[in-house]
Amino acid sequence: MRVIYSEDHKLRDARTELYAGQLVTPFEAPFRAEWILAALKEAGFRDIVAPDAHGQETARKVHDPAYLDFLATVWERWVAAGFTGEAIANSFPVRRTSQRVPDNIVGAIGHYANAADTSITKGSYEAAIASMRCAVTGADWLNAGNRFAFALCRPPGHHAGIDLFGGYCFINNSGVAAQRLLDRGAQKVAVLDVDFHHGNGTQDLFYHRGDVFTASLHGDPMHAFPYFLGHADEQGEGEGTGANRNYPMPPHTPWHVWSSALADALARIKTFGAEAIVLALGVDTFERDPISFFQLKSEDFIRMGEMISAAGLPVVTCMEGGYGVPEIGLNVANVLKGLEA
Amino acid sequence: MRVIYSEDHKLRDARTELYAGQLVTPFEAPFRAEWILAALKEAGFRDIVAPDAHGQETARKVHDPAYLDFLATVWERWVAAGFTGEAIANSFPVRRTSQRVPDNIVGAIGHYANAADTSITKGSYEAAIASMRCAVTGADWLNAGNRFAFALCRPPGHHAGIDLFGGYCFINNSGVAAQRLLDRGAQKVAVLDVDFHHGNGTQDLFYHRGDVFTASLHGDPMHAFPYFLGHADEQGEGEGTGANRNYPMPPHTPWHVWSSALADALARIKTFGAEAIVLALGVDTFERDPISFFQLKSEDFIRMGEMISAAGLPVVTCMEGGYGVPEIGLNVANVLKGLEA
Repeated sequence: MRVIYSEDHKLRDARTELYAGQLVTPFEAPFRAEWILAALKEAGFRDIVAPDAHGQETARKVHDPAYLDFLATVWERWVAAGFTGEAIANSFPVRRTSQRVPDNIVGAIGHYANAADTSITKGSYEAAIASMRCAVTGADWLNAGNRFAFALCRPPGHHAGIDLFGGYCFINNSGVAAQRLLDRGAQKVAVLDVDFHHGNGTQDLFYHRGDVFTASLHGDPMHAFPYFLGHADEQGEGEGTGANRNYPMPPHTPWHVWSSALADALARIKTFGAEAIVLALGVDTFERDPISFFQLKSEDFIRMGEMISAAGLPVVTCMEGGYGVPEIGLNVANVLKGLEA
Repeated sequence: MRVIYSEDHKLRDARTELYAGQLVTPFEAPFRAEWILAALKEAGFRDIVAPDAHGQETARKVHDPAYLDFLATVWERWVAAGFTGEAIANSFPVRRTSQRVPDNIVGAIGHYANAADTSITKGSYEAAIASMRCAVTGADWLNAGNRFAFALCRPPGHHAGIDLFGGYCFINNSGVAAQRLLDRGAQKVAVLDVDFHHGNGTQDLFYHRGDVFTASLHGDPMHAFPYFLGHADEQGEGEGTGANRNYPMPPHTPWHVWSSALADALARIKTFGAEAIVLALGVDTFERDPISFFQLKSEDFIRMGEMISAAGLPVVTCMEGGYGVPEIGLNVANVLKGLEA
């Protein structure tokens, strides 16, 4: 298992997250990657490398280029406007509105956001690029003929849509990894999202495409963030019809229920004919995650890896969520052990 | 000029507004109504009455009833969820999302919000009802054969859409007043919005209706809140085609430019055949308003009232915005003086 990690994740270190009506210390913070890296070393993962240099070229195939240009400049524009807080969207283009991009920076942030939880800060873009590079480098490890890679992406990516940030995500790392696999020869790939939260961004990227199967197992959006995508009847459109599968599950879902959904998703990925899996790995399905409501235990993450491995496909794993408890490192290590078992 | 005022506006007294990436003391606060009331008394307006009792019956003709039910219960649900901050939306149903209403209270708030600036607090609903009652009572003063009424509405209403709150607004007072005029015999009415900010909620309420002409003079949404409606090419649809008119204007717009737009709007209101005008009055067009960018002076507000009066129609004025400077009271009094001149 090659592990790809960049110190540049530390450039993403926001002070504020809008949560429960208050500005709190963000759940998505640098300690997460550090704890995970330490646990991997502890578990014996020794092949840890820095990502290769990579520009926006692959990201521009899954995101709106104007959105990426916005991300690259938003912090400078916010500071130039004279604001002293971190950059948070506060007006949104919801139903029955115009989709023009305002010139005003506050309006532009609202245009490109799907949530107000995520403050943009100095260094956020640079960290997002470094995170995306980990994903591309992981995909290239598979392209070189290897079976497993783990991109320790931070910030995460699966809530980032074609032209939307939010949910702690800016560039959709898993989506970029999938695109990289296709660009280097794969005809069909799958993104399997096992984070507690629906992979609304990833669904958005590929909803009309027939070359990427997207599956997400997650807390029912009637009860859980991101709330506005992730229902079972969202199955893709156009060339993507049938190539998106959602498994919304209720509060307190235990492993034996969750794993049935995983088995179904893996069967569909095989039927689809995917040549590789991008595993969008959140470990916030853990029973003690502070902002989630499933009941997986640490040993379940080993079985999760084993089940995915049994599909027989190369797997590039991209780190998504998992918060606040020391077990996040152990749980990630367990998934990777299960994959290699 | 009959003035309708309710002490219950004080029930709306939020501690927090998300502004420039920080939670600040709200610009829209009880002192606004108190300053305006004091200035009216000072200017000699003596006919000041409390609003009549009125339920949701008229509001339910312009808003989604499910939205009004949400407003009535949101604070209790938020408290029941255990949150200690004020209720602020943090995830939004932007483009390419589902429009199902989440069961979770955080999701439901996001579903019904168009901005994260507006915290919902204990008493906000009750204050919004009292504010709406002022508007209905003002409309009824016209229905009784009088020419002018001023509803000192607070909280304001013009950013509240069919099923959306935000921009300090919950129930669209001006829209409810227009509906009340129609319900009591008018065939056609106009809502003339002279607040600095686009009346996106009012436009939303009547965009497909042919019995209410809506006109709004405001800061260009490319540069100003609410950002996502208010462009000149939004002219109504279906039966409402041609019955919405927007006058977006750039930073530093002075009276001589602004008043040309007003003249055009008034001419169109006459051509439309409106039998009465609901004047959505914000005085944040004032040169020293803290969150706006037009350059009207206090004496311009007299001329504004005179021009509107010259249309020869009954006018019920509903208070909208205007912030932070003592002149808000004087400027409102000046409009009312101009109307009666």
